[in-house]
Amino acid sequence: MSGVKKAVVLVSGGLDSATTLAIAQHQGYLCHALSFRYGQRHVAELDAANKVVEFANVGIHNTIGIDMGKIGGSALTDPAIDVPDRPTQGIPVTYVPARNTIFLSLALGWAEVLGVQDIFIGVNAVDYSGYPDCRPEYIQAFEQMASLATRAGVEGRVTRIHTPLIELSKAGIIRAGVDLGVDYSHTVSCYAADDRGYACGVCDSCRIRRDGFLSAGIPDPTLYR
Amino acid sequence: MSGVKKAVVLVSGGLDSATTLAIAQHQGYLCHALSFRYGQRHVAELDAANKVVEFANVGIHNTIGIDMGKIGGSALTDPAIDVPDRPTQGIPVTYVPARNTIFLSLALGWAEVLGVQDIFIGVNAVDYSGYPDCRPEYIQAFEQMASLATRAGVEGRVTRIHTPLIELSKAGIIRAGVDLGVDYSHTVSCYAADDRGYACGVCDSCRIRRDGFLSAGIPDPTLYR
Repeated sequence: MSGVKKAVVLVSGGLDSATTLAIAQHQGYLCHALSFRYGQRHVAELDAANKVVEFANVGIHNTIGIDMGKIGGSALTDPAIDVPDRPTQGIPVTYVPARNTIFLSLALGWAEVLGVQDIFIGVNAVDYSGYPDCRPEYIQAFEQMASLATRAGVEGRVTRIHTPLIELSKAGIIRAGVDLGVDYSHTVSCYAADDRGYACGVCDSCRIRRDGFLSAGIPDPTLYR
Repeated sequence: MSGVKKAVVLVSGGLDSATTLAIAQHQGYLCHALSFRYGQRHVAELDAANKVVEFANVGIHNTIGIDMGKIGGSALTDPAIDVPDRPTQGIPVTYVPARNTIFLSLALGWAEVLGVQDIFIGVNAVDYSGYPDCRPEYIQAFEQMASLATRAGVEGRVTRIHTPLIELSKAGIIRAGVDLGVDYSHTVSCYAADDRGYACGVCDSCRIRRDGFLSAGIPDPTLYR
Protein backbone atom coordinates (compact mmCIF):
# COMPACT_ATOMS: atom_id res chain seq x y z
CA MET A 1 0.00 0.00 0.00
CA SER A 2 3.01 2.36 0.19
CA GLY A 3 2.80 5.19 -2.28
CA VAL A 4 -0.99 5.12 -2.37
CA LYS A 5 -2.41 8.46 -1.23
CA LYS A 6 -5.27 7.83 1.20
CA ALA A 7 -7.96 10.18 2.43
CA VAL A 8 -10.98 10.21 4.72
CA VAL A 9 -13.97 11.85 3.01
CA LEU A 10 -17.08 12.96 4.89
CA VAL A 11 -20.10 11.66 2.95
CA SER A 12 -23.52 12.87 4.08
CA GLY A 13 -25.60 11.77 1.11
CA GLY A 14 -25.95 15.34 -0.14
CA LEU A 15 -24.86 16.90 -3.41
CA ASP A 16 -21.78 18.61 -1.98
CA SER A 17 -20.19 15.60 -0.32
CA ALA A 18 -20.84 13.39 -3.37
CA THR A 19 -18.96 15.95 -5.47
CA THR A 20 -16.18 16.19 -2.90
CA LEU A 21 -15.73 12.41 -2.98
CA ALA A 22 -15.47 12.45 -6.79
CA ILE A 23 -12.90 15.27 -6.67
CA ALA A 24 -10.79 13.47 -4.06
CA GLN A 25 -10.81 10.32 -6.17
CA HIS A 26 -9.97 12.33 -9.27
CA GLN A 27 -6.98 13.76 -7.37
CA GLY A 28 -5.75 10.19 -6.95
CA TYR A 29 -6.75 9.47 -3.37
CA LEU A 30 -7.93 6.07 -2.22
CA CYS A 31 -10.93 7.28 -0.23
CA HIS A 32 -12.40 5.95 2.99
CA ALA A 33 -15.91 7.33 3.50
CA LEU A 34 -17.25 8.52 6.86
CA SER A 35 -20.95 9.10 7.54
CA PHE A 36 -22.83 9.96 10.71
CA ARG A 37 -26.11 8.83 12.21
CA TYR A 38 -26.63 11.91 14.35
CA GLY A 39 -30.35 12.12 14.86
CA GLN A 40 -31.22 13.47 11.42
CA ARG A 41 -34.93 13.93 10.86
CA HIS A 42 -35.04 11.38 8.07
CA VAL A 43 -33.32 8.15 7.11
CA ALA A 44 -33.19 9.25 3.47
CA GLU A 45 -29.92 11.06 4.05
CA LEU A 46 -28.09 7.91 5.18
CA ASP A 47 -29.69 5.84 2.42
CA ALA A 48 -28.33 8.41 -0.03
CA ALA A 49 -24.88 8.23 1.58
CA ASN A 50 -24.92 4.46 1.12
CA LYS A 51 -25.91 4.85 -2.54
CA VAL A 52 -23.22 7.46 -3.23
CA VAL A 53 -20.57 5.28 -1.62
CA GLU A 54 -21.75 2.12 -3.39
CA PHE A 55 -21.58 3.86 -6.76
CA ALA A 56 -18.11 5.28 -6.07
CA ASN A 57 -15.20 2.95 -5.50
CA VAL A 58 -14.24 3.61 -1.89
CA GLY A 59 -12.15 1.68 0.63
CA ILE A 60 -13.96 1.40 3.95
CA HIS A 61 -17.34 3.06 4.62
CA ASN A 62 -17.75 3.77 8.32
CA THR A 63 -20.99 5.14 9.80
CA ILE A 64 -20.66 6.45 13.35
CA GLY A 65 -23.63 7.07 15.61
CA ILE A 66 -23.67 10.24 17.72
CA ASP A 67 -26.51 11.12 20.02
CA MET A 68 -26.70 14.75 18.84
CA GLY A 69 -30.38 15.00 19.67
CA LYS A 70 -29.09 15.31 23.25
CA ILE A 71 -27.55 18.65 22.27
CA GLY A 72 -30.70 20.00 20.60
CA GLY A 73 -31.00 23.55 19.36
CA SER A 74 -31.44 22.79 15.65
CA ALA A 75 -34.36 22.15 13.34
CA LEU A 76 -32.31 19.30 11.85
CA THR A 77 -32.07 17.28 15.07
CA ASP A 78 -34.88 18.59 17.28
CA PRO A 79 -38.42 17.57 16.22
CA ALA A 80 -39.79 20.52 18.23
CA ILE A 81 -38.21 23.03 15.81
CA ASP A 82 -39.74 23.30 12.33
CA VAL A 83 -37.67 23.50 9.14
CA PRO A 84 -38.50 26.93 7.63
CA ASP A 85 -40.22 26.92 4.25
CA ARG A 86 -38.92 30.39 3.28
CA PRO A 87 -35.60 32.26 3.50
CA THR A 88 -34.66 33.66 6.93
CA GLN A 89 -32.20 36.36 8.06
CA GLY A 90 -28.85 35.51 9.70
CA ILE A 91 -27.79 32.05 10.86
CA PRO A 92 -30.86 29.83 10.29
CA VAL A 93 -32.49 27.37 12.72
CA THR A 94 -31.18 24.52 10.57
CA TYR A 95 -27.69 25.34 11.87
CA VAL A 96 -26.57 22.41 14.07
CA PRO A 97 -24.30 23.86 16.77
CA ALA A 98 -20.66 22.89 16.21
CA ARG A 99 -21.64 20.17 13.72
CA ASN A 100 -18.66 20.45 11.42
CA THR A 101 -16.34 20.58 14.42
CA ILE A 102 -17.89 17.40 15.82
CA PHE A 103 -17.76 15.65 12.42
CA LEU A 104 -14.19 16.75 11.68
CA SER A 105 -13.08 15.67 15.16
CA LEU A 106 -14.37 12.15 14.60
CA ALA A 107 -12.81 12.16 11.12
CA LEU A 108 -9.54 13.22 12.74
CA GLY A 109 -9.67 10.31 15.19
CA TRP A 110 -10.48 7.77 12.48
CA ALA A 111 -7.84 9.21 10.13
CA GLU A 112 -5.27 8.81 12.87
CA VAL A 113 -6.17 5.15 13.34
CA LEU A 114 -6.00 4.58 9.56
CA GLY A 115 -2.70 6.44 9.29
CA VAL A 116 -4.33 9.01 7.00
CA GLN A 117 -3.46 12.72 7.05
CA ASP A 118 -5.86 14.03 4.43
CA ILE A 119 -9.51 14.74 5.25
CA PHE A 120 -12.00 16.02 2.67
CA ILE A 121 -15.16 17.92 3.60
CA GLY A 122 -17.67 19.49 1.23
CA VAL A 123 -18.11 22.82 2.98
CA ASN A 124 -18.89 25.80 0.84
CA ALA A 125 -18.57 29.47 1.73
CA VAL A 126 -20.67 30.83 -1.15
CA ASP A 127 -24.12 29.21 -1.12
CA TYR A 128 -23.58 28.11 2.43
CA SER A 129 -26.80 29.06 4.20
CA GLY A 130 -24.86 31.30 6.60
CA TYR A 131 -23.24 28.62 8.76
CA PRO A 132 -20.15 29.89 10.64
CA ASP A 133 -18.32 26.55 10.40
CA CYS A 134 -18.21 26.69 6.59
CA ARG A 135 -15.75 29.59 6.37
CA PRO A 136 -12.09 29.26 5.27
CA GLU A 137 -10.80 30.88 8.48
CA TYR A 138 -12.63 28.24 10.52
CA ILE A 139 -11.14 25.38 8.48
CA GLN A 140 -7.65 26.85 8.87
CA ALA A 141 -8.10 27.10 12.64
CA PHE A 142 -9.30 23.49 12.78
CA GLU A 143 -6.18 22.36 10.89
CA GLN A 144 -3.94 24.20 13.34
CA MET A 145 -5.73 22.63 16.30
CA ALA A 146 -5.58 19.17 14.68
CA SER A 147 -1.82 19.31 14.28
CA LEU A 148 -1.55 19.72 18.07
CA ALA A 149 -4.27 17.21 18.99
CA THR A 150 -2.90 13.98 17.64
CA ARG A 151 -0.07 11.54 17.87
CA ALA A 152 0.55 12.16 14.15
CA GLY A 153 0.86 15.88 14.84
CA VAL A 154 3.32 15.31 17.69
CA GLU A 155 5.38 13.17 15.32
CA GLY A 156 5.40 15.99 12.74
CA ARG A 157 2.79 14.63 10.33
CA VAL A 158 0.39 17.45 9.55
CA THR A 159 -3.33 16.81 9.01
CA ARG A 160 -4.76 18.64 6.01
CA ILE A 161 -8.45 19.51 5.77
CA HIS A 162 -9.31 19.70 2.04
CA THR A 163 -12.29 21.83 1.06
CA PRO A 164 -12.37 21.65 -2.75
CA LEU A 165 -15.83 23.26 -2.94
CA ILE A 166 -15.21 26.17 -0.62
CA GLU A 167 -14.95 28.84 -3.34
CA LEU A 168 -17.45 27.33 -5.80
CA SER A 169 -21.02 28.40 -6.47
CA LYS A 170 -23.66 25.67 -6.33
CA ALA A 171 -23.75 25.72 -10.16
CA GLY A 172 -19.97 25.37 -10.24
CA ILE A 173 -20.13 22.40 -7.86
CA ILE A 174 -22.75 20.70 -10.03
CA ARG A 175 -20.77 21.29 -13.23
CA ALA A 176 -17.61 19.89 -11.60
CA GLY A 177 -19.51 16.82 -10.39
CA VAL A 178 -21.19 16.14 -13.72
CA ASP A 179 -17.78 16.37 -15.43
CA LEU A 180 -16.53 13.68 -13.02
CA GLY A 181 -19.55 11.44 -13.57
CA VAL A 182 -21.41 12.06 -10.31
CA ASP A 183 -24.99 10.81 -10.48
CA TYR A 184 -26.90 13.41 -8.48
CA SER A 185 -30.06 11.34 -8.53
CA HIS A 186 -28.40 9.33 -5.72
CA THR A 187 -28.11 12.40 -3.51
CA VAL A 188 -30.59 14.03 -1.14
CA SER A 189 -30.14 17.65 -0.05
CA CYS A 190 -33.58 18.46 1.36
CA TYR A 191 -33.75 19.29 5.09
CA ALA A 192 -37.20 17.70 5.24
CA ALA A 193 -36.97 14.80 2.79
CA ASP A 194 -39.40 11.96 3.34
CA ASP A 195 -38.24 8.40 3.96
CA ARG A 196 -38.09 7.68 0.22
CA GLY A 197 -35.79 10.69 -0.26
CA TYR A 198 -38.40 12.88 -1.97
CA ALA A 199 -37.61 16.57 -1.46
CA CYS A 200 -39.93 19.31 -0.16
CA GLY A 201 -38.74 21.82 -2.77
CA VAL A 202 -39.17 24.81 -0.45
CA CYS A 203 -36.53 24.61 2.31
CA ASP A 204 -33.27 26.59 2.04
CA SER A 205 -31.32 23.57 0.91
CA CYS A 206 -33.86 22.66 -1.80
CA ARG A 207 -33.94 26.23 -3.07
CA ILE A 208 -30.15 26.51 -3.31
CA ARG A 209 -29.94 23.11 -5.03
CA ARG A 210 -32.71 23.83 -7.54
CA ASP A 211 -31.19 27.23 -8.43
CA GLY A 212 -27.82 25.50 -8.84
CA PHE A 213 -29.11 23.08 -11.48
CA LEU A 214 -30.92 25.96 -13.20
CA SER A 215 -27.80 28.19 -13.37
CA ALA A 216 -25.63 25.25 -14.44
CA GLY A 217 -28.06 24.53 -17.26
CA ILE A 218 -28.21 20.88 -16.17
CA PRO A 219 -31.50 18.99 -15.77
CA ASP A 220 -32.42 18.65 -12.08
CA PRO A 221 -32.73 14.93 -11.21
CA THR A 222 -34.22 15.67 -7.77
CA LEU A 223 -37.42 13.84 -6.92
CA TYR A 224 -39.83 16.44 -5.55
CA ARG A 225 -42.97 15.30 -3.78
CA MET B 1 -30.94 33.81 35.70
CA SER B 2 -29.10 36.93 34.49
CA GLY B 3 -25.86 37.52 36.35
CA VAL B 4 -25.38 33.84 37.13
CA LYS B 5 -22.13 32.55 35.62
CA LYS B 6 -22.80 29.24 33.89
CA ALA B 7 -20.37 26.60 32.70
CA VAL B 8 -20.33 23.22 31.01
CA VAL B 9 -18.04 20.80 32.85
CA LEU B 10 -16.85 17.50 31.36
CA VAL B 11 -17.38 14.81 34.02
CA SER B 12 -15.94 11.37 33.28
CA GLY B 13 -16.21 9.81 36.72
CA GLY B 14 -12.46 10.07 37.26
CA LEU B 15 -10.52 11.91 39.93
CA ASP B 16 -9.51 14.81 37.69
CA SER B 17 -12.95 15.75 36.41
CA ALA B 18 -14.50 15.48 39.90
CA THR B 19 -11.88 17.97 41.10
CA THR B 20 -12.47 20.22 38.09
CA LEU B 21 -16.19 20.31 38.83
CA ALA B 22 -15.53 21.29 42.45
CA ILE B 23 -13.14 24.05 41.34
CA ALA B 24 -15.64 25.44 38.80
CA GLN B 25 -18.35 25.52 41.47
CA HIS B 26 -15.94 27.14 43.94
CA GLN B 27 -15.29 29.82 41.28
CA GLY B 28 -19.01 30.59 41.38
CA TYR B 29 -20.20 28.84 38.22
CA LEU B 30 -23.56 27.14 38.00
CA CYS B 31 -22.32 23.94 36.36
CA HIS B 32 -24.00 21.74 33.77
CA ALA B 33 -22.26 18.36 33.61
CA LEU B 34 -21.52 16.51 30.37
CA SER B 35 -20.58 12.83 30.24
CA PHE B 36 -20.04 10.45 27.35
CA ARG B 37 -20.97 6.86 26.70
CA TYR B 38 -18.28 6.23 24.12
CA GLY B 39 -17.65 2.54 24.21
CA GLN B 40 -15.63 2.49 27.40
CA ARG B 41 -14.61 -0.98 28.50
CA HIS B 42 -16.58 -0.80 31.70
CA VAL B 43 -19.79 0.75 32.97
CA ALA B 44 -18.08 1.69 36.25
CA GLU B 45 -16.86 4.96 34.76
CA LEU B 46 -20.37 6.22 33.98
CA ASP B 47 -21.69 4.97 37.34
CA ALA B 48 -18.94 7.03 38.95
CA ALA B 49 -19.85 10.08 36.84
CA ASN B 50 -23.44 9.75 38.04
CA LYS B 51 -22.29 9.52 41.65
CA VAL B 52 -19.98 12.53 41.35
CA VAL B 53 -22.75 14.61 39.77
CA GLU B 54 -25.35 13.49 42.31
CA PHE B 55 -23.09 14.48 45.18
CA ALA B 56 -22.29 17.88 43.65
CA ASN B 57 -25.06 20.39 43.04
CA VAL B 58 -25.17 20.68 39.26
CA GLY B 59 -27.78 22.03 36.85
CA ILE B 60 -28.39 19.58 34.02
CA HIS B 61 -26.44 16.32 33.63
CA ASN B 62 -26.32 15.28 29.98
CA THR B 63 -24.83 11.96 28.84
CA ILE B 64 -24.22 11.73 25.10
CA GLY B 65 -23.60 8.44 23.33
CA ILE B 66 -20.87 8.29 20.67
CA ASP B 67 -20.04 5.16 18.79
CA MET B 68 -16.29 5.57 19.23
CA GLY B 69 -15.67 1.83 19.02
CA LYS B 70 -16.17 2.42 15.28
CA ILE B 71 -12.96 4.44 15.30
CA GLY B 72 -10.94 1.84 17.19
CA GLY B 73 -7.21 2.14 17.74
CA SER B 74 -7.25 2.35 21.53
CA ALA B 75 -7.08 -0.11 24.39
CA LEU B 76 -9.88 1.89 26.05
CA THR B 77 -12.44 1.33 23.30
CA ASP B 78 -11.18 -1.70 21.38
CA PRO B 79 -11.52 -5.05 23.20
CA ALA B 80 -8.81 -6.50 20.92
CA ILE B 81 -6.15 -4.23 22.48
CA ASP B 82 -5.06 -5.03 26.06
CA VAL B 83 -4.60 -2.36 28.73
CA PRO B 84 -0.87 -2.56 29.66
CA ASP B 85 -0.03 -3.58 33.23
CA ARG B 86 3.34 -1.77 33.23
CA PRO B 87 4.70 1.60 32.07
CA THR B 88 5.34 1.99 28.34
CA GLN B 89 7.42 4.43 26.29
CA GLY B 90 5.87 7.31 24.30
CA ILE B 91 2.15 7.77 23.70
CA PRO B 92 0.49 4.67 25.22
CA VAL B 93 -2.14 2.38 23.64
CA THR B 94 -4.71 3.77 26.08
CA TYR B 95 -4.61 7.01 24.04
CA VAL B 96 -7.99 7.38 22.30
CA PRO B 97 -7.34 9.21 19.01
CA ALA B 98 -8.68 12.77 19.13
CA ARG B 99 -10.77 12.01 22.22
CA ASN B 100 -10.49 15.42 23.89
CA THR B 101 -11.20 17.12 20.55
CA ILE B 102 -14.34 15.02 20.10
CA PHE B 103 -15.46 15.62 23.69
CA LEU B 104 -14.74 19.36 23.58
CA SER B 105 -16.55 19.66 20.23
CA LEU B 106 -19.71 18.16 21.68
CA ALA B 107 -19.30 20.37 24.77
CA LEU B 108 -18.99 23.35 22.42
CA GLY B 109 -22.23 22.45 20.65
CA TRP B 110 -24.13 21.94 23.91
CA ALA B 111 -22.67 25.12 25.43
CA GLU B 112 -23.88 27.07 22.41
CA VAL B 113 -27.42 25.72 22.84
CA LEU B 114 -27.33 26.56 26.57
CA GLY B 115 -25.91 30.03 25.90
CA VAL B 116 -22.79 29.14 27.89
CA GLN B 117 -19.29 30.34 26.97
CA ASP B 118 -17.24 28.63 29.65
CA ILE B 119 -16.20 24.99 29.36
CA PHE B 120 -14.16 23.19 32.03
CA ILE B 121 -12.07 20.11 31.30
CA GLY B 122 -9.77 18.28 33.70
CA VAL B 123 -6.75 17.84 31.44
CA ASN B 124 -3.39 17.78 33.06
CA ALA B 125 -0.01 18.31 31.44
CA VAL B 126 2.10 16.97 34.31
CA ASP B 127 0.99 13.42 35.20
CA TYR B 128 -0.78 13.15 31.87
CA SER B 129 0.27 9.74 30.56
CA GLY B 130 1.76 11.40 27.45
CA TYR B 131 -1.45 12.30 25.61
CA PRO B 132 -0.95 15.07 23.03
CA ASP B 133 -4.41 16.56 23.60
CA CYS B 134 -3.63 17.42 27.23
CA ARG B 135 -1.08 20.14 26.42
CA PRO B 136 -1.70 23.89 26.93
CA GLU B 137 -0.86 24.69 23.28
CA TYR B 138 -3.54 22.25 22.15
CA ILE B 139 -6.17 23.82 24.43
CA GLN B 140 -5.27 27.29 23.15
CA ALA B 141 -5.63 26.15 19.53
CA PHE B 142 -9.01 24.58 20.33
CA GLU B 143 -10.20 27.88 21.84
CA GLN B 144 -9.15 29.78 18.72
CA MET B 145 -10.95 27.29 16.48
CA ALA B 146 -14.05 27.41 18.71
CA SER B 147 -14.35 31.17 18.39
CA LEU B 148 -14.66 30.74 14.60
CA ALA B 149 -16.89 27.65 14.70
CA THR B 150 -20.00 28.92 16.39
CA ARG B 151 -22.80 31.43 16.16
CA ALA B 152 -21.63 32.80 19.53
CA GLY B 153 -18.16 33.35 18.07
CA VAL B 154 -19.55 35.11 15.01
CA GLU B 155 -21.49 37.38 17.36
CA GLY B 156 -18.31 38.18 19.29
CA ARG B 157 -18.86 35.99 22.34
CA VAL B 158 -15.64 34.08 22.95
CA THR B 159 -15.66 30.50 24.25
CA ARG B 160 -13.17 29.87 27.02
CA ILE B 161 -11.77 26.40 27.74
CA HIS B 162 -10.82 26.32 31.43
CA THR B 163 -8.18 23.81 32.49
CA PRO B 164 -7.68 24.44 36.19
CA LEU B 165 -5.61 21.26 36.68
CA ILE B 166 -3.26 21.72 33.75
CA GLU B 167 -0.20 22.74 35.79
CA LEU B 168 -0.91 20.65 38.90
CA SER B 169 0.72 17.40 39.96
CA LYS B 170 -1.62 14.53 40.83
CA ALA B 171 -0.88 15.18 44.51
CA GLY B 172 -1.72 18.86 44.00
CA ILE B 173 -5.01 17.94 42.35
CA ILE B 174 -5.93 15.63 45.22
CA ARG B 175 -5.06 18.24 47.83
CA ALA B 176 -7.14 20.87 45.99
CA GLY B 177 -10.08 18.48 45.76
CA VAL B 178 -9.94 17.41 49.39
CA ASP B 179 -9.87 21.11 50.44
CA LEU B 180 -13.08 21.59 48.41
CA GLY B 181 -14.77 18.54 49.92
CA VAL B 182 -14.48 16.15 46.96
CA ASP B 183 -15.19 12.57 47.99
CA TYR B 184 -12.76 10.57 45.88
CA SER B 185 -14.35 7.29 46.89
CA HIS B 186 -17.01 8.16 44.28
CA THR B 187 -14.45 8.32 41.48
CA VAL B 188 -12.95 5.60 39.29
CA SER B 189 -9.68 6.19 37.45
CA CYS B 190 -8.66 2.63 36.52
CA TYR B 191 -8.49 1.83 32.79
CA ALA B 192 -9.59 -1.71 33.56
CA ALA B 193 -12.05 -1.30 36.44
CA ASP B 194 -14.58 -4.06 36.90
CA ASP B 195 -18.32 -3.39 36.81
CA ARG B 196 -18.39 -2.61 40.53
CA GLY B 197 -15.68 0.04 39.98
CA TYR B 198 -12.90 -1.95 41.66
CA ALA B 199 -9.49 -0.93 40.31
CA CYS B 200 -6.73 -3.17 38.92
CA GLY B 201 -3.99 -1.25 40.73
CA VAL B 202 -1.41 -1.85 37.97
CA CYS B 203 -2.45 0.20 34.89
CA ASP B 204 -0.90 3.62 34.21
CA SER B 205 -3.90 5.43 35.56
CA CYS B 206 -3.99 3.39 38.80
CA ARG B 207 -0.27 3.91 39.33
CA ILE B 208 -0.46 7.69 38.85
CA ARG B 209 -3.50 7.90 41.16
CA ARG B 210 -1.99 5.75 43.91
CA ASP B 211 1.29 7.73 43.82
CA GLY B 212 -0.78 10.94 43.98
CA PHE B 213 -2.50 9.96 47.22
CA LEU B 214 0.86 8.80 48.64
CA SER B 215 2.64 12.11 47.81
CA ALA B 216 -0.32 14.14 49.06
CA GLY B 217 -0.22 12.24 52.34
CA ILE B 218 -3.94 11.52 52.03
CA PRO B 219 -5.43 8.04 52.60
CA ASP B 220 -6.28 6.41 49.25
CA PRO B 221 -10.02 5.57 49.22
CA THR B 222 -9.70 3.54 45.99
CA LEU B 223 -11.20 0.06 46.08
CA TYR B 224 -8.59 -2.31 44.66
CA ARG B 225 -9.59 -5.82 43.74
